[in-house]
Amino acid sequence: MLSANDPSLKTWVEVPADSDFPVQNLPFGIFKPKIGTARAGVAIGNYVLDLQEMAQLGYFDTLHLKDHAVFSQPYLNDFIALGKSACQQVRQRISELLRHDNAKLQDNYEHRRKVLLYDTEVHMQLPVKIGDYTDFYSSMEHATNVGTMFRDPANALLPNWKHLPVGYHGRSSSIVVSGTNFHRPNGQYKTPDAALPGFGPSQQLDFELEMAFVIGQSTELGEHIPVTKAEEYIFGMVLFNDWSARDIQAWEYVPLGPFLGKNFASSISPWIVTLDALEPFRVPGPVQEPQVLPYLQSSGQRNYDIHLEVSILPDKGSEKVVCRSNAKYLYWNIAQQLAHHTVNGCNVTIGDVYASGTISGPKADAYGSMLELTWRGTKPLLLADGSERKFLHDHDTVIMRGFGKKDGNRIGFGEVRGKVLPAKEI
Amino acid sequence: MLSANDPSLKTWVEVPADSDFPVQNLPFGIFKPKIGTARAGVAIGNYVLDLQEMAQLGYFDTLHLKDHAVFSQPYLNDFIALGKSACQQVRQRISELLRHDNAKLQDNYEHRRKVLLYDTEVHMQLPVKIGDYTDFYSSMEHATNVGTMFRDPANALLPNWKHLPVGYHGRSSSIVVSGTNFHRPNGQYKTPDAALPGFGPSQQLDFELEMAFVIGQSTELGEHIPVTKAEEYIFGMVLFNDWSARDIQAWEYVPLGPFLGKNFASSISPWIVTLDALEPFRVPGPVQEPQVLPYLQSSGQRNYDIHLEVSILPDKGSEKVVCRSNAKYLYWNIAQQLAHHTVNGCNVTIGDVYASGTISGPKADAYGSMLELTWRGTKPLLLADGSERKFLHDHDTVIMRGFGKKDGNRIGFGEVRGKVLPAKEI
Repeated sequence: MLSANDPSLKTWVEVPADSDFPVQNLPFGIFKPKIGTARAGVAIGNYVLDLQEMAQLGYFDTLHLKDHAVFSQPYLNDFIALGKSACQQVRQRISELLRHDNAKLQDNYEHRRKVLLYDTEVHMQLPVKIGDYTDFYSSMEHATNVGTMFRDPANALLPNWKHLPVGYHGRSSSIVVSGTNFHRPNGQYKTPDAALPGFGPSQQLDFELEMAFVIGQSTELGEHIPVTKAEEYIFGMVLFNDWSARDIQAWEYVPLGPFLGKNFASSISPWIVTLDALEPFRVPGPVQEPQVLPYLQSSGQRNYDIHLEVSILPDKGSEKVVCRSNAKYLYWNIAQQLAHHTVNGCNVTIGDVYASGTISGPKADAYGSMLELTWRGTKPLLLADGSERKFLHDHDTVIMRGFGKKDGNRIGFGEVRGKVLPAKEI
Repeated sequence: MLSANDPSLKTWVEVPADSDFPVQNLPFGIFKPKIGTARAGVAIGNYVLDLQEMAQLGYFDTLHLKDHAVFSQPYLNDFIALGKSACQQVRQRISELLRHDNAKLQDNYEHRRKVLLYDTEVHMQLPVKIGDYTDFYSSMEHATNVGTMFRDPANALLPNWKHLPVGYHGRSSSIVVSGTNFHRPNGQYKTPDAALPGFGPSQQLDFELEMAFVIGQSTELGEHIPVTKAEEYIFGMVLFNDWSARDIQAWEYVPLGPFLGKNFASSISPWIVTLDALEPFRVPGPVQEPQVLPYLQSSGQRNYDIHLEVSILPDKGSEKVVCRSNAKYLYWNIAQQLAHHTVNGCNVTIGDVYASGTISGPKADAYGSMLELTWRGTKPLLLADGSERKFLHDHDTVIMRGFGKKDGNRIGFGEVRGKVLPAKEI
């Protein structure tokens, strides 16, 4: 039996050549059909496979899952809670049913009509109920850029940065799914020459290009997840836009970290790509020097070669790609992040989201935020319509995309997009 | 009809003279009886009133609540979601049924046996499912002490401190109910003279004396809660111990704030005292100078005169009160905290917990953490058994208590306690 990842697999479903969702991907998400309640689905080409219908039609009967109701929930948490092995069996089963030489579903047109929906006819939802959300700061290029701009170019990285994956707790309630627009945040900020802080809509609204992993197995308070076991606790990954109001953030963040400069909205892509599907894209991470403490030591290929890009789409105009980066640049890998997060006994819960922090690359066009791309507004970006941007304008849409490509196969994340609406009056 | 707060009310239930839970309090919580599942209860003297039984016996029928199942849930969230008016009606109804001149429940011994349980025979649970948890930093005395020790006595408060209630996101998953013991956290820390960070059990484990409020009404992303309406969104308050590992925190916290130094455990008291029950204890807050921005301006009495104390109980020995403080000292009140938190459109959810930050008073015995009480370990505390403490030892239990007292009536929170177990081996 070929694995669900095998590059030679072909499917009877029509999949466009450059689709993010070939039969080797099969990411999980939650969608609402035109009629009916939210349920679990899998992306294949331009279609969404309805797992509630698949279960009800008996296609998963041979798997002996504990519970088929997990496909009819508004979040994937209960499905994920079946365990990694059960989720892998479901993905493998779907892979088999979609293969070009498998007639079972292929030749049953009534079933096909029920289970395969055009992606334009469904509404994607937040895929998981998120308990806690943590944002790391794991790109050395990003931390160096920020340290250079705001502190001291000669000592851009703070003393702790190479010893631990710095992170902070973010806001779960304001994480929204791709396509959810939000209002420019109001808040306090203080210009350097002002005696007192002012109040109003943020003038320095930014994006941050990130990826995030979703927890697949919970722990009890007091448990530690070692680096070598961390991947067993991770279900999969998404794209993540950590919208940031730089002026609010700069004024509020000492000494306890970012707060209102971040928690007005964060956007995630709707499809969770499983770690299994990302296996082909493993690469070694950067050399870590000085050597990290034993509980953080990591061997093997724990980074992922995932191309990332960010576009800005003005209200009337066309998209312009303003950043091309790659997840492989991250200094701290996801196993190290999770090992660090739990070394003190902090418990994790299925559905938790752990974001990477802005993923900047070494070159100036690989910087993952406008703060860095425009170097604090000193080098405005030129958009497709000839207009300039130091930071985001009202009605700008930001679109992030990501994919791995190897041996002619492409495994993608789709996109995460969001539009800036004008600030509300306070 | 007398209000549930009326100081003249008497109950037929035996209530000890100095109880935190007279008939004027009636706080809500979740408990597990010896046999049966977790459910809602109300504290009265040394008893717990079983609201699931009360509902099933028809005592709430006249209230026409949407749903009686809310009393049979493992969290209060669904009860709280009935709305402030419904919760007030339930509290008022319970108050009436418990009054000395009301025979209905008083004379029905079979019902009394079913609904009134000794508090020693139940297990208190976390009262709410917590979505997000935020910790503020709202005591000027605490912020000044910390700034003096770690930065600059002449500029102890950072420039933003008097302009906004500084806060940060904490970890929801590791919030535990009183009585839950936890292991001393392992982590990285670096002594000033060491070249590299070390790893091991925290050597500077501390408590932080705080109070927290629980959200009673959710908002949508983009909504702002003004100061004048904030109390409508608050269900009630609890005691909160924000356990802190000072050595881990000091090394990790730049630039993104506290993380593993906090998220190994935070403890809350099991009974949520409603804002209604705290009405008699309203007092004006400190004068805020310089004047705050309009969205933070607050009039009337929005602080609460609640006596707070902290005891340390060594493994073999007796309790020693090491701190006596008061919630009235807080510079930023809860309405300002919530108005600030939502001014950027951040949404709140029923069950969210918002803690005050350490509540220190002006005198040295009113400091709300060992960091301050021992002035960074330079002035050890003397315990009842003659032993000294710079920070907490293994097997130490910390107990916090709080109550308001006025016109001979005492409205209390009970206690929040937790014991430090030895670190686990990594």
